[in-house]
Amino acid sequence: MDVGSWLIETRTLIDRWIQEDFPPNASTGGTVEEVMRYSLLAGGKRLRPQLVLASAAYLGHVVEEFKEMALAVEYLHTYSLIHDDLPAMDNDDWRRGSPTAHKQFGEAMAILAGDALLTEAFVKMAGPGLAARFEPSRLVAAIGNFSHAVGRQGLIQGQVKDLAGEGQTLQLQQLAEIHHKKTGALIIACVQMPAMVVGDFVSEARLIEYGSHFGLAFQIVDDILNETGDAAMMGKSTGTDRALGKATYPALLGMDESRRLADYHRIQAKTALGWEPRAELLQGLIDFAVDRQW
Amino acid sequence: MDVGSWLIETRTLIDRWIQEDFPPNASTGGTVEEVMRYSLLAGGKRLRPQLVLASAAYLGHVVEEFKEMALAVEYLHTYSLIHDDLPAMDNDDWRRGSPTAHKQFGEAMAILAGDALLTEAFVKMAGPGLAARFEPSRLVAAIGNFSHAVGRQGLIQGQVKDLAGEGQTLQLQQLAEIHHKKTGALIIACVQMPAMVVGDFVSEARLIEYGSHFGLAFQIVDDILNETGDAAMMGKSTGTDRALGKATYPALLGMDESRRLADYHRIQAKTALGWEPRAELLQGLIDFAVDRQW
Repeated sequence: MDVGSWLIETRTLIDRWIQEDFPPNASTGGTVEEVMRYSLLAGGKRLRPQLVLASAAYLGHVVEEFKEMALAVEYLHTYSLIHDDLPAMDNDDWRRGSPTAHKQFGEAMAILAGDALLTEAFVKMAGPGLAARFEPSRLVAAIGNFSHAVGRQGLIQGQVKDLAGEGQTLQLQQLAEIHHKKTGALIIACVQMPAMVVGDFVSEARLIEYGSHFGLAFQIVDDILNETGDAAMMGKSTGTDRALGKATYPALLGMDESRRLADYHRIQAKTALGWEPRAELLQGLIDFAVDRQW
Repeated sequence: MDVGSWLIETRTLIDRWIQEDFPPNASTGGTVEEVMRYSLLAGGKRLRPQLVLASAAYLGHVVEEFKEMALAVEYLHTYSLIHDDLPAMDNDDWRRGSPTAHKQFGEAMAILAGDALLTEAFVKMAGPGLAARFEPSRLVAAIGNFSHAVGRQGLIQGQVKDLAGEGQTLQLQQLAEIHHKKTGALIIACVQMPAMVVGDFVSEARLIEYGSHFGLAFQIVDDILNETGDAAMMGKSTGTDRALGKATYPALLGMDESRRLADYHRIQAKTALGWEPRAELLQGLIDFAVDRQW
């Protein structure tokens, strides 16, 4: 299958899975599900769940077997966006072209919906779906890996350092460290967890390296788009990093060198996988992530 | 061992476990661990981890085998307190006699520390400790149960309904429903999870019933103490429920009838366990919870 069609089809599939988990009639009237559904369906790229599914394909598995894992990483990601947008954090009013959760439903409900999405990620990981398909000891290890990646030494530490770094002059090494935690840890988990649950340790090492370069390439492009991107196309404000005095790749390296660095990590990621047919979807996914305009 | 000594000894043990997880030198200087440690060591009763350990003893197991599970429920509980205290939620400045996390470290760090504690609960549950001791498929089921108990249909739903109920006139049934979710779901998980991981399904049913009555008794006493308790002894403001227009047991039933209802649930909880020697610690724990003055 060509990569472009696969990306569109899996995005539709993931959207449908989310809709099934949060049906409209059960997600209305001041429930926390209403806020969760709103944020989940506000139009994400679904890149993280697609990484799970592309990793599954790389490992020779049917993507449907990884449904709950794909949902878990998207729920986790959406929680991190909701909390990042809060007034006490980045104070963003717009996200994916819609008002952020706290603008739409108030701060209390936004905090609770974020908490509920974080929790729901583990409901999916430890629920009956994956447990019926994979060896339980491997599944426990994957849940442990996941929780570690998004915890106090991973995603959350990245967010703390990101907030602390506002208005500071950072070196490239510090910037890479922040992004490795804030964005990279979850992206690595997306491709690593499928290898863990199927017990393919050779592929796991390659996928970790792929994910690590993917995370850096992705974040460099994010920084570039924040500077140069089209706000209407991206559905959120641009130029916000500069306004907050955040260190970014373009600010440190200039635009051309930032683009070169993103390409370097793209090639490193592809090389890590080996140039095999089974790597095609993951190769296509990083092309999409680096070449995107939103 | 007499119950009073056991309560003191396990409280010391739990405090030591937390200190080991968050050593002072690694938890300073603007890290999220500093905020986590602050809130964890601000002097809780440790009732939830004690329920885990007393349940382990009821099942004939050594309490040390359940260390990570005991920490997980305390981390989960502490996250829920930090987020509940936020200005957008209950807006409490004092907790356990100290400034709340957001008063001490600012809102952003309080939100992130809560997120990190919630995540850390799953790091503990799925980490190497419990996985080495218990059958992995049972452990996955316990993690699933735990995440469900504290998620959108459990603890978080209770919090949403609690906020929605402020200033409303609630019936006793609605109040019990809120408390069953907000407090009861986690308390039931505390005593149920040990039975799940050891695979004792007969005891599990009894423990669920015990936990259910424990949760109600505990919450009724909480409401009574909020009305009549000594603020200095409790380390937090009293009379806050009335000020917020929250429905409480004393407001609905009066003080005497509330005390009678707490006693009713205490007896039901004890009866659920059966009057066996192995039930002694759990019996003592509910006496402590109902007779406490703070």
